Amino acid sequence: MFISFEGIDGCGKSTQARMLADALRAEGRDVILTREPGGSPGAEEIRRLLVEGAGERWSGETEALLFTAARRDHLERTIHPALARGETVITDRFADSTRVYQGAARGDLRDLVDRLHDLAIGLEPDRTFVIDIDPATGLSRGTARGGVEDRFESLGLGFQEKLAAGFRDLAAANPARVRLIDGRGTPEQVAARIRAAL
Amino acid sequence: MFISFEGIDGCGKSTQARMLADALRAEGRDVILTREPGGSPGAEEIRRLLVEGAGERWSGETEALLFTAARRDHLERTIHPALARGETVITDRFADSTRVYQGAARGDLRDLVDRLHDLAIGLEPDRTFVIDIDPATGLSRGTARGGVEDRFESLGLGFQEKLAAGFRDLAAANPARVRLIDGRGTPEQVAARIRAAL
Repeated sequence: MFISFEGIDGCGKSTQARMLADALRAEGRDVILTREPGGSPGAEEIRRLLVEGAGERWSGETEALLFTAARRDHLERTIHPALARGETVITDRFADSTRVYQGAARGDLRDLVDRLHDLAIGLEPDRTFVIDIDPATGLSRGTARGGVEDRFESLGLGFQEKLAAGFRDLAAANPARVRLIDGRGTPEQVAARIRAAL
Repeated sequence: MFISFEGIDGCGKSTQARMLADALRAEGRDVILTREPGGSPGAEEIRRLLVEGAGERWSGETEALLFTAARRDHLERTIHPALARGETVITDRFADSTRVYQGAARGDLRDLVDRLHDLAIGLEPDRTFVIDIDPATGLSRGTARGGVEDRFESLGLGFQEKLAAGFRDLAAANPARVRLIDGRGTPEQVAARIRAAL
């Protein structure tokens, strides 16, 4: 089974991906916990090009090509081999992040993003959990965490609100695959909601 | 005007690109001399991912995506601005290299390469010079030069012969744009053939 976690920065999806991996391992399953951009040695190198440097370093078009290259490598080297061994794959972000982030930043890129996905990726998760929280809360958590990967966070609250709306639209448009999870409360409370929805 | 030089490693195209740039500058033209993969700061970083490391580091699909990302950045940051200023752009390799190299390595990738070009690049040079030499000569020159960019050269003479045939096919299929130039003789003799064809 292939499961992805999605949502705005600071929504708690990395924590929830880890908690679900731990819970499934405790039940005896083989689980690979991975992330995007990155998730394989080559994709991690492409990730460094994507997350470091100034916000205008790449155009949206070049960025979409680099995200697709990283995802292709992640798919070939990590996700497909693990699924072929019968393991459960849990990823912190996948193609939906590209769709929603690029869609919020530049809506005219959505067609390019979709065509690149069809050409080079094709695969969708069996189940996607979108952790839904208040954008102001997510932004304050993300800023507190700091680090180099703040290119999108630096775009401010208005952009976080567009992203949160984008993820809700994604869930509404893909009801069979995507589950919108209320991200309020303790990590254990959110984890219980995810287990109930799985 | 946008001019590209193509051909197998060691064919002399870098020398000829430089000689043509010098000759046009001596006539008073503004000329940008550039190269692929690379040609802009971002594309040079992607180039490092492409030319360093083991031959099996990337799959052909991931490599095609990375080449397209680098080319898109090169186009946006170097080629389009120079053409917009009315300058002549001379590039050492462009999209034809991807077509011929990927076609020789994995013919099944040609459709992906073409679709990526249509989606993200679109532009073709006004004139392309393919420097045609004996593959054994090219290989000995390339190996003598050494360096880190020998991933393709290490594939041996049989592969160089496939590449040379691929470039000849390209010239035959695009007679209005591509000129096949006899690469034998001194650099000055080859340069004279190029000026006559320009």
